[in-house]
Amino acid sequence: MTGTTICAPATSGTGAIAVIRISGPDTFGIVDQIFVPATEGKKLEDQPTATIHFGTIRQGEEVVDEVLVSVFRAPHSYTGENAVEISCHGSPYIQKRILEMLTEAGAQPAGPGEFTQRAFLHGKMDLSQAEAVADLVAAESEGAHRVAMQQLRGGFSEKLKELRDRLLRFISLIELELDFSEEDVEFADRKELTRLVNEISDMINGLVGSFRLGNVLKNGVPVAIVGRPNVGKSTLLNAILNEDRAIVSEHEGTTRDTVEDTIVLDGICFRFIDTAGLRETAEPIETLGIRRTYQKIRQASIVLLLTEAGDDPDLIKRSMEVIREQLEGDSRQLVLVLNKADNVSGEALERLREEILLEKNEHLIAISARERENIEGLAELLLDLVNIGSIRHQDVIISNIRHYNALKSASESLDRVSQGLSSPLPTDLLAQDIREVLHYLGEITGEVTTDEILGNIFKNFCIGK
Amino acid sequence: MTGTTICAPATSGTGAIAVIRISGPDTFGIVDQIFVPATEGKKLEDQPTATIHFGTIRQGEEVVDEVLVSVFRAPHSYTGENAVEISCHGSPYIQKRILEMLTEAGAQPAGPGEFTQRAFLHGKMDLSQAEAVADLVAAESEGAHRVAMQQLRGGFSEKLKELRDRLLRFISLIELELDFSEEDVEFADRKELTRLVNEISDMINGLVGSFRLGNVLKNGVPVAIVGRPNVGKSTLLNAILNEDRAIVSEHEGTTRDTVEDTIVLDGICFRFIDTAGLRETAEPIETLGIRRTYQKIRQASIVLLLTEAGDDPDLIKRSMEVIREQLEGDSRQLVLVLNKADNVSGEALERLREEILLEKNEHLIAISARERENIEGLAELLLDLVNIGSIRHQDVIISNIRHYNALKSASESLDRVSQGLSSPLPTDLLAQDIREVLHYLGEITGEVTTDEILGNIFKNFCIGK
Repeated sequence: MTGTTICAPATSGTGAIAVIRISGPDTFGIVDQIFVPATEGKKLEDQPTATIHFGTIRQGEEVVDEVLVSVFRAPHSYTGENAVEISCHGSPYIQKRILEMLTEAGAQPAGPGEFTQRAFLHGKMDLSQAEAVADLVAAESEGAHRVAMQQLRGGFSEKLKELRDRLLRFISLIELELDFSEEDVEFADRKELTRLVNEISDMINGLVGSFRLGNVLKNGVPVAIVGRPNVGKSTLLNAILNEDRAIVSEHEGTTRDTVEDTIVLDGICFRFIDTAGLRETAEPIETLGIRRTYQKIRQASIVLLLTEAGDDPDLIKRSMEVIREQLEGDSRQLVLVLNKADNVSGEALERLREEILLEKNEHLIAISARERENIEGLAELLLDLVNIGSIRHQDVIISNIRHYNALKSASESLDRVSQGLSSPLPTDLLAQDIREVLHYLGEITGEVTTDEILGNIFKNFCIGK
Repeated sequence: MTGTTICAPATSGTGAIAVIRISGPDTFGIVDQIFVPATEGKKLEDQPTATIHFGTIRQGEEVVDEVLVSVFRAPHSYTGENAVEISCHGSPYIQKRILEMLTEAGAQPAGPGEFTQRAFLHGKMDLSQAEAVADLVAAESEGAHRVAMQQLRGGFSEKLKELRDRLLRFISLIELELDFSEEDVEFADRKELTRLVNEISDMINGLVGSFRLGNVLKNGVPVAIVGRPNVGKSTLLNAILNEDRAIVSEHEGTTRDTVEDTIVLDGICFRFIDTAGLRETAEPIETLGIRRTYQKIRQASIVLLLTEAGDDPDLIKRSMEVIREQLEGDSRQLVLVLNKADNVSGEALERLREEILLEKNEHLIAISARERENIEGLAELLLDLVNIGSIRHQDVIISNIRHYNALKSASESLDRVSQGLSSPLPTDLLAQDIREVLHYLGEITGEVTTDEILGNIFKNFCIGK
């Protein structure tokens, strides 16, 4: 694949300018066929890296556009190959023409993520960094941006590679022992190995633990709003939307068929999922609507149960009971939101709180959506529940489900290595467990990879990335 | 205005990358505040023009993005000022952050077309070339692209400037004569002046004459389809759309409230305007629908009257009569399209042709939209009617209504100069007429300009252009 030269637009839409990328061994030869530099006889082939050249794209005598061409010589380019970026005027017509001329001259249209895949294959970035490129471009909030940027900058992958390299040295010593197995020698210092295994364990556990937060930052916090019809769900949503610091964006659900309301508060994206609501009687009748509501509650990290200050406390308690069943045994949060509470006394509120008996991970807040009272308080509570403090100060965060699964698998193998070291296991079985750890860790950074893994990762990229 | 430093995104949408432009005297100082080059201590301020620098955009310790920065030193930039282009990852979040940081560091958000306006003010292009930039970005067809590119490359404006310069020399001689008016001397050779006036006249008349074609190439050919309901208007449209060489694009009408069907045939854009149709009786009753249809007929360069082969010839004749009244005294074209003609004999067609008595600029064609018969013939006819042959071989074309009006005014003043020269006019009146010609010609290329003219031109540009 790296024998070919590929081209694609790197920008989208109709702006003042557009950028077309070309990468591969024949880049300069191909672009020289269609580019006439303003300075006569100045072939791109002969230009130094990181220089810009003004001229025209020509088809025969016709001037297709006046452009700037940026030259990048291998390995000093995004892909690590010879590469060129053509800055042309932003019309779709011109872009189409130039791409046609490039393919005519011998370039091939790039597939999704092919530039980044080449960057990975040429060692310009590891696999987790390549994945971060797509996350970075897709990041819509400060939180998502921060996680992606950290990953792009090599965040955890450098440390992971270093630990893996040290483990790799142990496995070669252990395999040497296997060669001399009849002589019962021990090349690999078991104490040192134990220390390394513990170090790796600590790091992996930290990363696995960071996934919930990382995922929240990357994909937003799913918040289900439950309540009977007309209790004011949309008024509540609008009130939060109108918070000064809220940035509203419509977010076409990729796995769902509905458009969710997405609100960014202090850099954290909240995805509000409206539910059909619970029946007023809260009887567990398994109708379709109730089943869907249950499903949405189970998808949520935070459930807002919206009630009115005047509602019957028993009814409220029964509704909470139903939601608790769905959230069972989990760290997810349930917030009882008492709407239309602008005329409710502090005493009445206290009585209700006592009656309802909040459990762990349960919260009560009184607001008035219509009067916009205590909406700020609700926003604060939502942010508190996501535990942003811990995110901001945590150094390494993973947000990728592929990394999470690989780390979980590595962790399990690592546990077996640990046990094997404490209750002496035959060396060949120990080696087998260590090799598994190496395999899973290598999958994350791409030291171990298959076409299938690569295919799955890059098929989700845009063309031109 | 040129004392400030401006910034804006030059690309639109969410691609792999986005480009942010900065231009003005403080460009390097401003970007150096937020850009940390990968090579330590390498200030942009000290870098040569047309070079590219890798590094990070940082806010305090936070890495906002990894970017490429292109350096352009005055006058070797688009604007003629010191300028920088930042290639960042294409996420809207990153673009927003970088623009915020740039304005924080002292740059101002650019207004519409401000980069191009600065290019004009710094003499990097004349006004007609500046206008061509917007046309070029908006060009959706080969024809529109060709006209805009020719104008950008200085097409007619260089020649115009040269002729104007020569006229300018004459006016100074004539004004010298006015200083010596009591002595009755003649510094300006009247014969030579007459030759120059004729030369300018020829050029202006050529340009004025090219406007109809230029406008067609730039904005597309408006084609009204008239016919009674269910005669097959949409089938016809689909048949043309399915022509192998047709490129379909939906074109949101800027001055209309409807989406028109736009078809590009051999590089020429046709804008099909569907009408409510004429009443079957073709009585000139002024209902709203009929008035609207009349209006659309008058907007069209070509009217397709769609009928069926079996229709009553008298009815067809009456419909044609109504359309003729709207097109009266003009060079616009009327095409009688006989649909469902796949079973009609050549004889019957000939009889109809005789009965209808086509006038100048009227045409008859028999097709079958459903059977896709002779659609190719209809496409050829449309292209013939636009008279593309003459476009392709014409060297200079104007497509801008502002240029057209200025040229018309120049032409009128020039006629007076001509008359003044043949029937000796007092020198001061002659000078006055010549000055008017100079004024109008200068308006086109921007040698004569006002804030109002500039404001009108650049307000229609996008930001970032």
